Amino acid sequence: MWSTIGELGEFGLIERVTARFPGTGDVILGPGDDAAIVAASDGRVVATTDLLVENRHFRRDWSSAEDVGRKAAAQNIADIAAMGARPTALLVGFAGPPELPVAWAEELSEGLRAECAAAGAAVVGGDTVAAGEITLAVTALGDLGGHPAVRRDGALPGDVVAVCGRLGMSAAGFALLEAGVHDADDAERALAGRAPERGAGSGSGTAGPDAARSSAGEAPDWPDCLNEHRRPRPPYTDGPGAARLGARAMLDISDGLVQDLGHIARAGGVRIDLDSADLVPESALCEAAALLRELGRTDRTAREHMLFGGEDHALAAAFPPEAELPPQWCPIGTVAAPGADGPRVTVDGAAADARGWEHFR
Amino acid sequence: MWSTIGELGEFGLIERVTARFPGTGDVILGPGDDAAIVAASDGRVVATTDLLVENRHFRRDWSSAEDVGRKAAAQNIADIAAMGARPTALLVGFAGPPELPVAWAEELSEGLRAECAAAGAAVVGGDTVAAGEITLAVTALGDLGGHPAVRRDGALPGDVVAVCGRLGMSAAGFALLEAGVHDADDAERALAGRAPERGAGSGSGTAGPDAARSSAGEAPDWPDCLNEHRRPRPPYTDGPGAARLGARAMLDISDGLVQDLGHIARAGGVRIDLDSADLVPESALCEAAALLRELGRTDRTAREHMLFGGEDHALAAAFPPEAELPPQWCPIGTVAAPGADGPRVTVDGAAADARGWEHFR
Repeated sequence: MWSTIGELGEFGLIERVTARFPGTGDVILGPGDDAAIVAASDGRVVATTDLLVENRHFRRDWSSAEDVGRKAAAQNIADIAAMGARPTALLVGFAGPPELPVAWAEELSEGLRAECAAAGAAVVGGDTVAAGEITLAVTALGDLGGHPAVRRDGALPGDVVAVCGRLGMSAAGFALLEAGVHDADDAERALAGRAPERGAGSGSGTAGPDAARSSAGEAPDWPDCLNEHRRPRPPYTDGPGAARLGARAMLDISDGLVQDLGHIARAGGVRIDLDSADLVPESALCEAAALLRELGRTDRTAREHMLFGGEDHALAAAFPPEAELPPQWCPIGTVAAPGADGPRVTVDGAAADARGWEHFR
Repeated sequence: MWSTIGELGEFGLIERVTARFPGTGDVILGPGDDAAIVAASDGRVVATTDLLVENRHFRRDWSSAEDVGRKAAAQNIADIAAMGARPTALLVGFAGPPELPVAWAEELSEGLRAECAAAGAAVVGGDTVAAGEITLAVTALGDLGGHPAVRRDGALPGDVVAVCGRLGMSAAGFALLEAGVHDADDAERALAGRAPERGAGSGSGTAGPDAARSSAGEAPDWPDCLNEHRRPRPPYTDGPGAARLGARAMLDISDGLVQDLGHIARAGGVRIDLDSADLVPESALCEAAALLRELGRTDRTAREHMLFGGEDHALAAAFPPEAELPPQWCPIGTVAAPGADGPRVTVDGAAADARGWEHFR
C-alpha cells in the first residue's frame, strides 16, 4: 500500500507508529497533543537525551530495525537507571530519508515499544522529519520515587566498587562486525581466508576455522557478543536497587569501564583501584577475543575488552563497605584517597589510561 | 585555538557549551551526570520533542547560529505553553560535521541560552555526536503548577476562537528568503531584475523597487517577516494565561492556522467558523505579500498568509463565550456543532482546505 515513508507522509507515519505504543500508569496524556504529560510522583523528574546517527551508531546491514529501536531505548533508559530512578517515559525524534521503507520504520517502532515494555516505560511522544540520514533522538524520563538520586560524585575512600551487567561484549561484538563477521559462517570464511598467515606466524594452537565453532565442536558462545552489541540489556531494575543498597555514586558504562570510572574518581576526588582478577570474562567474550586475535583484528585480551570496551550500558557503583551486595553486583575494586597524582583509576596498581573512545575525533 | 568541533572533541565541546547554561530554581541537577533532575511541582511533567535538520528547517546562509538556537528552543517551548504549562527545562541533542566551526556551535548555544532565559527555562542536559548534517533535537519540559492541562479536544459549540501571536509573517519571510531576499538591497535588486515583466503584465500600481522600500519612502516594515521566520517570538506566558482564562482547547500553530485548527475541530467533534475580516494583517505582512506578488513568487494575500502560513508558533485557543479576553488575544471565529460534513474549519462560510505543509511529501 505505502512502501516508503515519503509516500505515507509525516502524519500517516505518526499515526501508524503511535498506534503501537500502549500507555502505562505513569502516562497522564500520551501522543497526539502539543506535548505529553507524565507522572513525576515526588515532584521531580529525571531526564536524559541521546542521539543515534546511522553509520556512526548503527548500520542497517549490521542491525535490524528492531535492534536499532531496542538499543536506542536501552541506552537512554540505562542513564535513568544509573541515577537510581525508575524509567517512566520516552520521547522519540526520528529523522529519515523519504525513500526509507515503511516496514523499517514500523520495525524500529516495535523495537522501541518492546524495550520500553521490558523497562516498564511508555513512548509518550515524538517528532518525525525528513532528512538525508537516519537519526534517532531519544529522551527518557524517570521517577526517583522519593529517594535521593545517585550521582557521580559521592564515592568515599573505603567504598567497594562493583559492576552489574556485562562488560566488553558489546565492544568485541562491534569489532567482529567491523571484521565482516555477522555469524558463524562469516567467521569460518574469514578464518579460512587467513589460514596461510596463521599457519606461518600465529603460533596459536587453535586449528583455524574451529575458533569460529568452539573447541568442543558445540555451538560457539561468541555470537552472544554480536547480540550484546545489537541489543544491549542494561540491568534496569538494579539502578533503583543500588540506590536502596546505599550506593554513593553510580553511572552507566557507555565509553568503557576505566574511562567512565574516571568520572566517578574525578567527581568524588578519589582514586579507584581495580583488581583485574575480579573481572571474570564470560566464555562468549573469551571466544570472541580469541577469534579477533586469529583474524588479526586486535590483540586485546578478554579482560582488556572488559576494561576498555564501550557501549556496555552496564552499571558501575561505589557502595559503602558494609553494603550486602546481591550476586548480580560483582565487586571489582575499592575507593581510596587520591595519591599525589590526583583522582584517577588504577588497574592492578598501575595507572590506567582511559582508552575509551570519543566521538568527533 | 580550536577552530572546528572535530579538533575540540566531544567532551571539549560539551564543556564549552554547558558553561553557558545557568540554572534556575527548577533545576535540581544540571548537566554533567547521566541525567538531569528537574522540579515537577505538582507531580506531573509536560514533555515535548522536535527535530530541526539543516537545509530542511534552517539554512546557515539564511539564519545565524544564534537564530537557529533561538528558534529550536522557541518552537519547543511554544508546545509547552500550548498545554497551559510553564516551561522549566530543555535537553538538546546536537549532531554536526567535525569540520563545523567551534564558533558556530558556541553561537548556537548562546541562542538556546537566550531563548530559554526569555522563557524562564534552563538547558539541563544534552548530547553531542558527529554526523553528516546538522541536526538539533530539542526536548522541552514544563510544569502545570497544579492546573489541568489545556488539550486539543475540549472545544464546545458557542466557544470563541482566538489567537495570540503573529500569523503569516514567518511563512512570508520564508518565501522571501526562498526568493533570495535577505534584506532591502536584495529586494531592490530582485525587483529591478523583474522590471520589464512587471511593466508589461502585472497591472500593479506600485512602482517597482519602491515596494522594497515602502510607499512613504521610510524604512520598510516587511523585513520584520524575515526576523519572524528566523526568530519566532511565541507568547510563552499567554499559554498558562489562557489556562487561567478558562481556555477549553489550545494548540501551538506550527503548520498553518487552518490546518492546526482542524486538529481542534476533529479532536472536539466541532466545526470552527473563521471570519477573515477578524484577521488583520500587520503592515509588515501587507508589504511582504505585495513584494512577493511583485517578485512573481506567490499571489497569496496577506490574509491568506495568516490562514495558511506555517511556523507561526502563535497560540490558538477556544474560550467559553463569557471569558474576558485581554487584548493580546484576538477573537477570529466561533465554535459550532458540526454539520453533515463533520468536524471541519470554514472561512467566511466556505469549507477551508488545510493548505499547510506536511514534511516528507
